[in-house]
Amino acid sequence: MMSNKVFVLNGPNLNMLGKREPGIYGDITLDSIAQLCRDKGNALNLDIDFRQTNHEGTLVDWLHEANEGVSGVVLNAGAYTHTSVALHDAIRSILTPVIEIHISNVHAREEFRHKSMIASASKGVICGFGPNSYTLAIQAFADIRNS
Amino acid sequence: MMSNKVFVLNGPNLNMLGKREPGIYGDITLDSIAQLCRDKGNALNLDIDFRQTNHEGTLVDWLHEANEGVSGVVLNAGAYTHTSVALHDAIRSILTPVIEIHISNVHAREEFRHKSMIASASKGVICGFGPNSYTLAIQAFADIRNS
Amino acid sequence: MMSNKVFVLNGPNLNMLGKREPGIYGDITLDSIAQLCRDKGNALNLDIDFRQTNHEGTLVDWLHEANEGVSGVVLNAGAYTHTSVALHDAIRSILTPVIEIHISNVHAREEFRHKSMIASASKGVICGFGPNSYTLAIQAFADIRNS
Amino acid sequence: MMSNKVFVLNGPNLNMLGKREPGIYGDITLDSIAQLCRDKGNALNLDIDFRQTNHEGTLVDWLHEANEGVSGVVLNAGAYTHTSVALHDAIRSILTPVIEIHISNVHAREEFRHKSMIASASKGVICGFGPNSYTLAIQAFADIRNS
Amino acid sequence: MMSNKVFVLNGPNLNMLGKREPGIYGDITLDSIAQLCRDKGNALNLDIDFRQTNHEGTLVDWLHEANEGVSGVVLNAGAYTHTSVALHDAIRSILTPVIEIHISNVHAREEFRHKSMIASASKGVICGFGPNSYTLAIQAFADIRNS
Amino acid sequence: MMSNKVFVLNGPNLNMLGKREPGIYGDITLDSIAQLCRDKGNALNLDIDFRQTNHEGTLVDWLHEANEGVSGVVLNAGAYTHTSVALHDAIRSILTPVIEIHISNVHAREEFRHKSMIASASKGVICGFGPNSYTLAIQAFADIRNS
Amino acid sequence: MMSNKVFVLNGPNLNMLGKREPGIYGDITLDSIAQLCRDKGNALNLDIDFRQTNHEGTLVDWLHEANEGVSGVVLNAGAYTHTSVALHDAIRSILTPVIEIHISNVHAREEFRHKSMIASASKGVICGFGPNSYTLAIQAFADIRNS
Amino acid sequence: MMSNKVFVLNGPNLNMLGKREPGIYGDITLDSIAQLCRDKGNALNLDIDFRQTNHEGTLVDWLHEANEGVSGVVLNAGAYTHTSVALHDAIRSILTPVIEIHISNVHAREEFRHKSMIASASKGVICGFGPNSYTLAIQAFADIRNS
Amino acid sequence: MMSNKVFVLNGPNLNMLGKREPGIYGDITLDSIAQLCRDKGNALNLDIDFRQTNHEGTLVDWLHEANEGVSGVVLNAGAYTHTSVALHDAIRSILTPVIEIHISNVHAREEFRHKSMIASASKGVICGFGPNSYTLAIQAFADIRNS
Amino acid sequence: MMSNKVFVLNGPNLNMLGKREPGIYGDITLDSIAQLCRDKGNALNLDIDFRQTNHEGTLVDWLHEANEGVSGVVLNAGAYTHTSVALHDAIRSILTPVIEIHISNVHAREEFRHKSMIASASKGVICGFGPNSYTLAIQAFADIRNS
Amino acid sequence: MMSNKVFVLNGPNLNMLGKREPGIYGDITLDSIAQLCRDKGNALNLDIDFRQTNHEGTLVDWLHEANEGVSGVVLNAGAYTHTSVALHDAIRSILTPVIEIHISNVHAREEFRHKSMIASASKGVICGFGPNSYTLAIQAFADIRNS
Amino acid sequence: MMSNKVFVLNGPNLNMLGKREPGIYGDITLDSIAQLCRDKGNALNLDIDFRQTNHEGTLVDWLHEANEGVSGVVLNAGAYTHTSVALHDAIRSILTPVIEIHISNVHAREEFRHKSMIASASKGVICGFGPNSYTLAIQAFADIRNS
Repeated sequence: MMSNKVFVLNGPNLNMLGKREPGIYGDITLDSIAQLCRDKGNALNLDIDFRQTNHEGTLVDWLHEANEGVSGVVLNAGAYTHTSVALHDAIRSILTPVIEIHISNVHAREEFRHKSMIASASKGVICGFGPNSYTLAIQAFADIRNS
Repeated sequence: MMSNKVFVLNGPNLNMLGKREPGIYGDITLDSIAQLCRDKGNALNLDIDFRQTNHEGTLVDWLHEANEGVSGVVLNAGAYTHTSVALHDAIRSILTPVIEIHISNVHAREEFRHKSMIASASKGVICGFGPNSYTLAIQAFADIRNS
Repeated sequence: MMSNKVFVLNGPNLNMLGKREPGIYGDITLDSIAQLCRDKGNALNLDIDFRQTNHEGTLVDWLHEANEGVSGVVLNAGAYTHTSVALHDAIRSILTPVIEIHISNVHAREEFRHKSMIASASKGVICGFGPNSYTLAIQAFADIRNS
Repeated sequence: MMSNKVFVLNGPNLNMLGKREPGIYGDITLDSIAQLCRDKGNALNLDIDFRQTNHEGTLVDWLHEANEGVSGVVLNAGAYTHTSVALHDAIRSILTPVIEIHISNVHAREEFRHKSMIASASKGVICGFGPNSYTLAIQAFADIRNS
Repeated sequence: MMSNKVFVLNGPNLNMLGKREPGIYGDITLDSIAQLCRDKGNALNLDIDFRQTNHEGTLVDWLHEANEGVSGVVLNAGAYTHTSVALHDAIRSILTPVIEIHISNVHAREEFRHKSMIASASKGVICGFGPNSYTLAIQAFADIRNS
Repeated sequence: MMSNKVFVLNGPNLNMLGKREPGIYGDITLDSIAQLCRDKGNALNLDIDFRQTNHEGTLVDWLHEANEGVSGVVLNAGAYTHTSVALHDAIRSILTPVIEIHISNVHAREEFRHKSMIASASKGVICGFGPNSYTLAIQAFADIRNS
Repeated sequence: MMSNKVFVLNGPNLNMLGKREPGIYGDITLDSIAQLCRDKGNALNLDIDFRQTNHEGTLVDWLHEANEGVSGVVLNAGAYTHTSVALHDAIRSILTPVIEIHISNVHAREEFRHKSMIASASKGVICGFGPNSYTLAIQAFADIRNS
Repeated sequence: MMSNKVFVLNGPNLNMLGKREPGIYGDITLDSIAQLCRDKGNALNLDIDFRQTNHEGTLVDWLHEANEGVSGVVLNAGAYTHTSVALHDAIRSILTPVIEIHISNVHAREEFRHKSMIASASKGVICGFGPNSYTLAIQAFADIRNS
Repeated sequence: MMSNKVFVLNGPNLNMLGKREPGIYGDITLDSIAQLCRDKGNALNLDIDFRQTNHEGTLVDWLHEANEGVSGVVLNAGAYTHTSVALHDAIRSILTPVIEIHISNVHAREEFRHKSMIASASKGVICGFGPNSYTLAIQAFADIRNS
Repeated sequence: MMSNKVFVLNGPNLNMLGKREPGIYGDITLDSIAQLCRDKGNALNLDIDFRQTNHEGTLVDWLHEANEGVSGVVLNAGAYTHTSVALHDAIRSILTPVIEIHISNVHAREEFRHKSMIASASKGVICGFGPNSYTLAIQAFADIRNS
Repeated sequence: MMSNKVFVLNGPNLNMLGKREPGIYGDITLDSIAQLCRDKGNALNLDIDFRQTNHEGTLVDWLHEANEGVSGVVLNAGAYTHTSVALHDAIRSILTPVIEIHISNVHAREEFRHKSMIASASKGVICGFGPNSYTLAIQAFADIRNS
Repeated sequence: MMSNKVFVLNGPNLNMLGKREPGIYGDITLDSIAQLCRDKGNALNLDIDFRQTNHEGTLVDWLHEANEGVSGVVLNAGAYTHTSVALHDAIRSILTPVIEIHISNVHAREEFRHKSMIASASKGVICGFGPNSYTLAIQAFADIRNS
């Protein structure tokens, strides 16, 4: 039977959410988003493990950890999205599907945010929906389980 | 009161779905996806208007039509995604929010599919979830109405 | 004797003028511009045929139509300016001179609007003068007739 | 038994042939080329369906139409050759083989004509032989039928 | 009351007009163009101050001079158009509007003439109309005064 | 009277045909292709001189030799197609027309095979038809002789 | 009252200073620079907190820590200067101003050191003055406090 | 004994300071900055020679003049920073050290201001500190004299 | 006497070896490679210290550690090979020679793996030999000691 | 039984070894390297056939010759490494594995030596070890035979 | 009768010759070069007019002056060689042939010195011969007069 | 005593001189140029050895031959100028100075002729003087012998 655990992994600076550039990210905090995710998880019978780190290597560690007993990873890799070959390889090194998400519409921001190093290794991408980017990704995993 | 009408607009070659490259797009037909969208719309009390055309100009016409009495547009612009400044401008010319979607994960395909001319004008992007890319976008509009 | 007919052809999204991004385009409508053009034409004894379409192929058709019995074409190709080799070839396929115009100063906008695919095939370019870009182009054709 | 129908599809501005830049394209008209194709078809027992349009979407429609009951498509996509991802996808969406042709040697002309968006999806490419580019392509389909 | 003075500033090599490459620039001299401008100015009640220099720094000086008591600058910056950040900044350092003009259609010439460093700082651009590029720009300032 | 001699020149690695990457080139040998060419030549009253070398300089020598008493050159320059300015110049140094051919559709292969250094100097290009690329080129020379 | 605390943060390999490439960096050690900074801080009544790490994530952590109770950050991000979007975002996520410094003149070194990912998010940049780059930056914060 | 003279050289458009784009440059005039520099010079026993020109060639002349009897040059080359190989060479042609400065943080502005042609020839770079960029550079020369 | 210690350092995702993409990396685990290295070291009288980390900063730390008492470093930096200026600098900051290795032939994989940021700072590069890439590098250090 | 013959093929200018740029290549001659290779071959029971040519076509010829009765090719293609598509294809046209080697670390030299046209077709790459690059490659073939 | 006057024009920083970077330019002064040129002129019956300026505009002025009564211009444009479209146009604006020269071999120096904006407008280029670059150019004009 | 032998080496297609594109190269033959060179050599007491080949490898062989007993090489490498790293290395592998020459002004021709792979390894470059490019280079060697 497939695990009902879903990792929600957050990369650098997302701990500053709510304090940082509300014009772009809104004023919701990461704690509130964690709660939103857990609520959504409860509704869909998914067990959410929500984490944040500023360290690229720790994101790699966590992705490896997700290789067993986890049915999906929602990954907001923040700035590492645009530069990290290590994350690309980490995603490819595991069988668990990963969904890349972003709170803002990265394509409407600076040029260097248009390129994702991890999208091609991911299952899919969701961006631009604010905190709902998280819940839509969780919904997507529920859809996959049901199909 | 906000309209409950949602346009789901499909661009070139999507009428060939099911016949075309099932390795990439699966074997579901566009008619089945239309039905999925209507089912999802019914569940969320949204009225789905589902269309397809191979003509860039017709997509522009339909986007203008969506400027009044429509609460959202789900846009799978197909190949025009990567080349059409006209669609970019059409999206910016209307107040109705537009969500760019793709059935496949375009970032895992040819280089020329990595660039979107319309993402920066759209509300957000969802790609890689097969037919569920459509239903997740409809869900996103329902979330916006509820927030 | 040279025809006194001048085509004024408008491309995609220009029908939304007045409704769309007034910060860039002002709040004048396309109908008002058509009237300005006709007034200017009357003053200069030129017969203005003013049209708009969102379809690239229709612009090509109209340019071919202008090959006979028309002394000049004022062309605001909108977004197709930046991508259309077909319009470039259409302009070169006719003997009637074509003037490329833009309402806004495209060079002060996004990078992708700085390049014109049609300028090198046109007689000249006028941009940045709001609705007067149209009347200056009509004036230019009158100047050519008088020289 | 394989159909003996061959589509010969012509894109934008080719209706101006004979009137347009004879230094590049010669002074033969499209009607004469159609006749050459039909003559060649008769000699090879192939039924030629010869068409022209300035609309990218119409070329896409016609390629889809060729998916059934047609043994080959000779495609002179004109300017859309260099920009159209939609045509690339349309060719890939059908099983009928497509041969890209050009009247002139596009590699000896402007830089922007050196790149073809459709060649990689086509069976092969023939360019530079004037009207004979058409008849060589028809010959190539006859060769395929005989092999 | 707004000044009726208009500067017409000419950059490097324009003093050679008439002697230089008549195939591109025609055989009219700069003195004749100055007279055309003064005639047009008289007709529109504008006082034309017509100058030429081969020195980039002098063009900067003159633009600063135009900051007071001048209602518009017609600027044919010649070769400096394509390289001068200093002129870009000079135009932005003054409130008087500047119109960039060119005698020839620069987009139909060498690649390095396609890029303008000053267009994005200017009010608008007019090119390709021979000496009429000057008079159309003067007309444009008259239009602005009347609107 | 025009010579009825046609050179068919083959560049590097084509001697390995049949042994090399049959998925791309098929399993036909160069000897069989030579025979096909001679048969086609016989049918069209053309005298085929078929050669192969791995040396760029030898291809240049042979092209010079073709300057006299030869009515056409079919050139499959193999890898040198993509890098050789020397072949470009050699083609331009002779009056005899040259047709560039390829067995495979080079545009559907690696990026570095998309660019041809010799196409712009050649009469035309034929690629993607397997051994028939050779016979179509010979046909093209026969067409030229007959026109 | 504004805090008198200033962070001086050093990135990867700066702990090797004095041992590493003295031709570029001189033979002073990081400890000596720390002492120079503290001396300068004492003279200007600023409390210097001097740190070094080889971990990008730790630099991000420290920048977040500087968001409260710190009046300025002197940041020598070493190699991460040229690649780290995470540091760019971290600087933008805090209100405390950051000054980017370098010991050597990075513009006179390898091409890949010419581009800074963090300069556009910083208050200003100082480079090329050896250990004085640090003290000039501390002086700059004192100037800001006094203005 | 080393000269105590320091040149402070200002390039194009800096004479417009205070009148020009106060959002970027503040409202201080160049005269006030000259006074700040002289005050800083007095405090550090340096004799400041403060100049401005819009002419690239004059900046070159002044740099040559600084080759003798001058201990340092503070150079705000304005727009010529980004384009002038002549200034690069002039700096390298003299033994007197040169510090490149900018009032604004050029890296946070348009792309074309990110590249400096003169940084690699200079001793160091200081930018982003408003008028203090000047006084920090003067301080840097005092530091060099004291070391 | 030179130390007989050799570091073998492994970067991100190499701990997943054997689980990850066996088509590219084979099914050998990192533990087996460690054993191979120790066996090779024993045969050549070298003391192998074999480590793995997913953290870029830790690789930098270890390279610094290798500066004393270590005669060589075999470095498989994995994904950081292609992005890390910090590793480039770390290699240059130590006197101990470093050999860059890769299990697979990186040049036969994705474009972004073709560029190495660390090769130019390393003694040499060995790639494509599977686990033997490690033992060949150890052999190379033995050769250096014997020469 | 697998052949024990190994080709060691050297490209242009390697005959000048010892006379040419000893700072880069050392002062060993190609004859001495041949002897080193034969010694290494003897130790590993491999029969070394060592050759040099300045002709690209001859290298292609020799690679084809290696297709039968040869168990491996050590290829120092010298300058042709960076430009030759013909060598790339020759390597792919044979089944015998090829190892690309270089005496110097090409990545630490001019930009145009960083790109290899043949690496992606080769089994692996070894560079930077002086004459030992040859013996390590021979060792690699022995390892392959033993595995 | 053709004039025997030859202009030798020198651009920015050449007045510093002998003081500046003798490793690149040698220790000869510009005065000595002027004397060499006059001696060579005397030997060939050419009247040398030797000048230097740091101002781009002055070089343009002098080129215009050379349009009448001058049989050739030897132009060492120094740094302006690489950036000046104005000089390109000035050379094209006159009938007098211009030879571009450089003392050093610019192709063996920094990348930005490899591109010349003026070479394509000049008669020919001579570089790398030290002061002899001047005398060879004077010889070239004598050759032209004699042919 | 220095040898008085000078090699004049000619690359691909130069044997076609006089037959090939007289608009670019004039109608003089290579034999006539050889005679011009021998005459010039006689006048300057230099012994000219004049050769031509279409083979890159032969040019490399001849450059090696020039390493002993030859005082200079005049090299017109033709098309190989723009692509040959092998020639670049060959020039650097010998002590004899090499002068790169071209008959035409390559900078006024196609873009791919603007880049020279050999200029940076050569003593100097002379181009654009027709057959005199050869004699000027011979003069340059005489100047070197006399200095």
